Amino acid sequence: MDFAFDTRTEELRGRLLAFMEECVYPAEAVAVGQRARLASPWDTPAVFGELKAEARRRGLWNLFFVNQHGLPDEEYGAGLTNLQYAPLAEITGRSPHLAPMATNCAAPDTGNMELLAQFGNERQKKQWLEPLLAGEIRSAFAMTEPEVASSDATNIETRIERDGDAYVVTGRKWYISGAMNPDCKVFIVMGKTDPGGADPRRQQSMVLVPRDTPGVEVRRAMTVYGYADHDHGGHAEVVFDGARVPAENLIGEEGAGFAIAQARLGPGRIHHCMRLIGMAERAVELMCRRAVGRTAFGRELAAQGVVQNWIADARVTIEQLRLLVLKTAWLMDTVGNRGAHTEIQAIKIATPRAVVEILDRAVQLHGAGGVSQDFPLAELWAAARTLRLADGPDEVHQRSLAHRELKRYR
Amino acid sequence: MDFAFDTRTEELRGRLLAFMEECVYPAEAVAVGQRARLASPWDTPAVFGELKAEARRRGLWNLFFVNQHGLPDEEYGAGLTNLQYAPLAEITGRSPHLAPMATNCAAPDTGNMELLAQFGNERQKKQWLEPLLAGEIRSAFAMTEPEVASSDATNIETRIERDGDAYVVTGRKWYISGAMNPDCKVFIVMGKTDPGGADPRRQQSMVLVPRDTPGVEVRRAMTVYGYADHDHGGHAEVVFDGARVPAENLIGEEGAGFAIAQARLGPGRIHHCMRLIGMAERAVELMCRRAVGRTAFGRELAAQGVVQNWIADARVTIEQLRLLVLKTAWLMDTVGNRGAHTEIQAIKIATPRAVVEILDRAVQLHGAGGVSQDFPLAELWAAARTLRLADGPDEVHQRSLAHRELKRYR
Amino acid sequence: MDFAFDTRTEELRGRLLAFMEECVYPAEAVAVGQRARLASPWDTPAVFGELKAEARRRGLWNLFFVNQHGLPDEEYGAGLTNLQYAPLAEITGRSPHLAPMATNCAAPDTGNMELLAQFGNERQKKQWLEPLLAGEIRSAFAMTEPEVASSDATNIETRIERDGDAYVVTGRKWYISGAMNPDCKVFIVMGKTDPGGADPRRQQSMVLVPRDTPGVEVRRAMTVYGYADHDHGGHAEVVFDGARVPAENLIGEEGAGFAIAQARLGPGRIHHCMRLIGMAERAVELMCRRAVGRTAFGRELAAQGVVQNWIADARVTIEQLRLLVLKTAWLMDTVGNRGAHTEIQAIKIATPRAVVEILDRAVQLHGAGGVSQDFPLAELWAAARTLRLADGPDEVHQRSLAHRELKRYR
Amino acid sequence: MDFAFDTRTEELRGRLLAFMEECVYPAEAVAVGQRARLASPWDTPAVFGELKAEARRRGLWNLFFVNQHGLPDEEYGAGLTNLQYAPLAEITGRSPHLAPMATNCAAPDTGNMELLAQFGNERQKKQWLEPLLAGEIRSAFAMTEPEVASSDATNIETRIERDGDAYVVTGRKWYISGAMNPDCKVFIVMGKTDPGGADPRRQQSMVLVPRDTPGVEVRRAMTVYGYADHDHGGHAEVVFDGARVPAENLIGEEGAGFAIAQARLGPGRIHHCMRLIGMAERAVELMCRRAVGRTAFGRELAAQGVVQNWIADARVTIEQLRLLVLKTAWLMDTVGNRGAHTEIQAIKIATPRAVVEILDRAVQLHGAGGVSQDFPLAELWAAARTLRLADGPDEVHQRSLAHRELKRYR
Repeated sequence: MDFAFDTRTEELRGRLLAFMEECVYPAEAVAVGQRARLASPWDTPAVFGELKAEARRRGLWNLFFVNQHGLPDEEYGAGLTNLQYAPLAEITGRSPHLAPMATNCAAPDTGNMELLAQFGNERQKKQWLEPLLAGEIRSAFAMTEPEVASSDATNIETRIERDGDAYVVTGRKWYISGAMNPDCKVFIVMGKTDPGGADPRRQQSMVLVPRDTPGVEVRRAMTVYGYADHDHGGHAEVVFDGARVPAENLIGEEGAGFAIAQARLGPGRIHHCMRLIGMAERAVELMCRRAVGRTAFGRELAAQGVVQNWIADARVTIEQLRLLVLKTAWLMDTVGNRGAHTEIQAIKIATPRAVVEILDRAVQLHGAGGVSQDFPLAELWAAARTLRLADGPDEVHQRSLAHRELKRYR
Repeated sequence: MDFAFDTRTEELRGRLLAFMEECVYPAEAVAVGQRARLASPWDTPAVFGELKAEARRRGLWNLFFVNQHGLPDEEYGAGLTNLQYAPLAEITGRSPHLAPMATNCAAPDTGNMELLAQFGNERQKKQWLEPLLAGEIRSAFAMTEPEVASSDATNIETRIERDGDAYVVTGRKWYISGAMNPDCKVFIVMGKTDPGGADPRRQQSMVLVPRDTPGVEVRRAMTVYGYADHDHGGHAEVVFDGARVPAENLIGEEGAGFAIAQARLGPGRIHHCMRLIGMAERAVELMCRRAVGRTAFGRELAAQGVVQNWIADARVTIEQLRLLVLKTAWLMDTVGNRGAHTEIQAIKIATPRAVVEILDRAVQLHGAGGVSQDFPLAELWAAARTLRLADGPDEVHQRSLAHRELKRYR
Repeated sequence: MDFAFDTRTEELRGRLLAFMEECVYPAEAVAVGQRARLASPWDTPAVFGELKAEARRRGLWNLFFVNQHGLPDEEYGAGLTNLQYAPLAEITGRSPHLAPMATNCAAPDTGNMELLAQFGNERQKKQWLEPLLAGEIRSAFAMTEPEVASSDATNIETRIERDGDAYVVTGRKWYISGAMNPDCKVFIVMGKTDPGGADPRRQQSMVLVPRDTPGVEVRRAMTVYGYADHDHGGHAEVVFDGARVPAENLIGEEGAGFAIAQARLGPGRIHHCMRLIGMAERAVELMCRRAVGRTAFGRELAAQGVVQNWIADARVTIEQLRLLVLKTAWLMDTVGNRGAHTEIQAIKIATPRAVVEILDRAVQLHGAGGVSQDFPLAELWAAARTLRLADGPDEVHQRSLAHRELKRYR
Repeated sequence: MDFAFDTRTEELRGRLLAFMEECVYPAEAVAVGQRARLASPWDTPAVFGELKAEARRRGLWNLFFVNQHGLPDEEYGAGLTNLQYAPLAEITGRSPHLAPMATNCAAPDTGNMELLAQFGNERQKKQWLEPLLAGEIRSAFAMTEPEVASSDATNIETRIERDGDAYVVTGRKWYISGAMNPDCKVFIVMGKTDPGGADPRRQQSMVLVPRDTPGVEVRRAMTVYGYADHDHGGHAEVVFDGARVPAENLIGEEGAGFAIAQARLGPGRIHHCMRLIGMAERAVELMCRRAVGRTAFGRELAAQGVVQNWIADARVTIEQLRLLVLKTAWLMDTVGNRGAHTEIQAIKIATPRAVVEILDRAVQLHGAGGVSQDFPLAELWAAARTLRLADGPDEVHQRSLAHRELKRYR
């Protein structure tokens, strides 16, 4: 259980920190300015492409990739372990709109790429994985539905019906992240091929549905506390009205959807948690800068006990979260994603909740500025808060983790 | 200390509830649709005017008004006490974008009208108070500044300088609620006429600055967790660059600004708290409807202990908040705003914090829907959360209330 | 809904406050000293009798009593409504070991007296109610059992079996408050007369079991966080090993036990809550005195923001709790205990939890003194904390209150 | 930063776990029984000596000891690093009354032994350190005073005055842990030799005061939430009324008291935190056993969502705390106690607070049993709660940690 950064990690951290200082932070304001002048807010600011080119040039590309065994992947990715990637993902979390995208490490593409590498056939890899790895297109993962509690995948209502040599997809999905971006060329859709099947975990399948398939309608942009998340390609409501795709677009086999989803979500959760820690660090930095620069009622904010408590508690919390994330990454590397199941749940429960609290106090310390667009805090808060219910709400993970704990005593 | 609703209150509650059912709730979707088709998002949907006309016709107009002694005002208002108004304001809080505006009871106009009635001269009343009372124009209160902790009014940096028979206003304000709305015709501006004066509470003055005064620039719309609050006229950054107004635009006398601000804020705070309780009630209703209508992991949400706790705790909290608000209203009626100072602070501390928590759980229960535009919860949350820092952050009120409590033991 | 103190209440408050200052507070140290010299720690210090005599002389006696209709009782009690009693009970809560006992308003005797008045026959009243009303004996209520979740009365395992003209009681009870005191002459025992009966709420009955009945063993004193609660007569484990009592000792009829218990617990809960508010007020007073008298790191504690927040939040919380308790009392007076069911649950959920938190902060402010016997805080904390699980844990009341709230939406 | 257990740690863990199962847990009830029959409750049950002999025989003795460089000490101790000791201390925390004492790893002797080894002269080591290492006597550390906020050592009022070749100690101390035990033969007393000295951190000195010195009065046992902590030798109020000791009893030099105290407290804090984690694990185990064994309202407690949340959150919290403690131990081993200052503060802030919460929920789950002497939970709670104010209250450490964080931004 050695969490020290090895040479490769240290070297990449240095390179990534330089990239952040030299390119990413300066690009934040540039991106806002460029977006304001785009024809559609869903188009991509030019600086995005420049950042990607620069990151690739600097060897900061596809850092996240682990192979089907959960091991470093040198075929598709940078060949890093989860433990090596964790501190890098944390750094990108400090500018979560730009840095993950710039390094081709942004959700949901990351999970989709790993999914295709692991479960896709050669044709699917050729058609979709390669351009994704190259950062030429983007992709979406269409699972959540408005009408049912989708954290319980047995509730899924979308139908994927075999019809000759095709599958016909019918259903309504929402909060399909990235799908508002016209560069998002393909959806991985979760639905039921065998809705009445005996085993509720074998009813689901996944198919690849190209964006331009007739019957696919990207209906509208959902918001998250008022934010449209343009940089991420938004969160779309997508209606599949008899969308017909070749049968070869099935990923894996019929009935494998549930298992593929489970396999996909673990790494995604840890990536989110890594970045959340970077978001929390940015909040602490902003809190400290604000506290030393403002005076109220005759005393610097930094000299006020309540503010000191907020800062101290944030530091104490972050240290704990980081260690738990590193341990989880290390476990995933050594015993695999399934072996790290409890720890993945633990960080999923602990991290968003705690980071939400840190961000909330940072907002409070900034007064009106905190809720505004002039500081990143309110938007980071909304992103963190949403992670308390995305990929399964806290309560689902608490329930599952408790079951495991209790089993020992039966 | 009798909080029972008297006959007049009951009668008005009935009338208001009917207005909500028949006009306000149906108008919510209409307003969204109309706004989407406006030339500027800051223009006013036609349904707003219809609601106002209908409310006025039904005798639901200027319900909030108390006179300079804090007593029912029949000259300008509906002649209600604070205690009579409280349950009505709560009801309007269930649809906070429309109902307060429709009944001409919306901030910041309410506080501005009372201020003008109490401190304005006859000319000022004629010019500004009358059209405000008639709902023909709107107004803004320009106090908060981006560069200083404005909850401590001695920090205010805006200058109001006498120059001949005029005052010249120079400074930068932000989060000036309502100012993005072109119908907002006048700003009450807080600044310093005597920045070096010996008494830090006599340095400030207030002047009326018409929107079309040269040197006034409504620069941009600030957001609140991503929301622009179009219905409220937004929250503007406003720059006063040597804006020149006649000396007769001074409100009261030079040096009276601090005292006027204090007088203005008390009633405003209780109005916010009354409406917050209505927002919390709407959240509980939505939680219950969701809980009885959804199933996850084989059980109705309503049957799950965590959900039951959220609902029970929300009910227990609301009951307490409502009683404290009613007591405060009753105190304001009987001993005046100054006599109710501690209670006003108490509700200002207690209410936003508790309602934020209730709304947060309602969001969690709604999953992705909770953070979306399809339910009012996320937007209500943002509004409630902002009230933990508007009109002075929680911490300022806690500090002040503690001073008062401690004084008894010195 | 008028919560103002009427003339009678004001007069009694004045009299009671004088009694507290002149007799009760001075007796606190006396009682500790006397108890240390008693032959058995369960004997009664002489000052207890003196306080009772003095309270009776001052007309501060049996203040709590309401009759079977929940109305003021002038036959047995002082003829006060719940609303009149509430502020008096709060005052006695400031010295909860002495003042309730001194005024013959201490649990569990209060509930037992009301129970006997309402459900007892004349013989039972003569034998037990009269000496209880006179403060000559004490009593206990034997419901909780160690082996089952007794908050669900259908779980009760004690058997009450008819045998000729007697009932035979067999079972084990614990946390029978007051039973360690040798003056506790009678137990009201809850058990099952019809354990297999069809209606799970008609299986239970209650019988009066005199302390000296053969087969009754007061086995040991249970502790509450290290406190034996000698002043209250402790909390005993009591074993009933075939204890035989005349059939006429049955209270009411067979099968009525569940209903009698429900009727008994409501008023008891509000009494606890009233006193808890007095305990919280004492904590705030101690916090303030400590804060103005100590210095750490160069600043008076009272000048430190964290301490100010604790004090302010305590004040805000107490105001809310008091209003909710007063409203509940008023409801009990006007619509009866059943009509006030939801409010009784609400105060049972809200009050102990909030007062525990206030006391905890008071402890923290007092450092080592806070956990010691030199301040009442730690012992008050233990008492308040126990009320989060006595008479049904929080969770049971939350569940029940949520059911009621949800029912409206089905 | 490798936290994996090395071979030696694994071997010792196995040995210690066997000792717990075979000797310590069975001795818990034995000790209670023996103590009840002792002449004085402050005497030592015979089983204590047996446990110590057995632990020593098994090579489980003085495991805690690190030398003056913070490195494994083979002269006096078992030669373990902090990182090796941490998981062992955690295990002893599962039975905190017996296991630390049995292995001669109990506070305050551990800190006193390290202090004597580092700062004592040869005579002092011979006289006091050797019998302490052998477990033949016990010792106390007399720092806290009732009249001042002693977490700020500049407040200390006890005087240590040079008089010829002696020091005369005058002052009042309390919460001197262990001092009620007659085997506690010596006090290390912190006082001021130079109360008016220019440097407030050079005014203090420490002297060794044998228990039988004239002028030393062990006046009374202080309690902690009603617990006397007999097993630990209680917490005494000790009065030094001109107690005269030879000048050679000075530890180190005059003015070194503050620095010695700082050096002493770091390791003590981490030991407490290690044991707290063991206490939390015991609480989780008890919660799980209770939850699978009880039914309320028709469902096993383990199936109830609130209980599941408590268990899940406890597990998530413990994992984080343990990692932070391990990291801190590793830091102390690698960069020394001063280098680990921030982390020591972090665990001091995080651990007691979180474990208090876990224990509180475990109490709640156990109902009346939870607050009783039949389960260890209430007593463990009191011990954990006290650690939120012992060795400096949370707020002092938060303040200090925040200063360090803020310094980077000035």
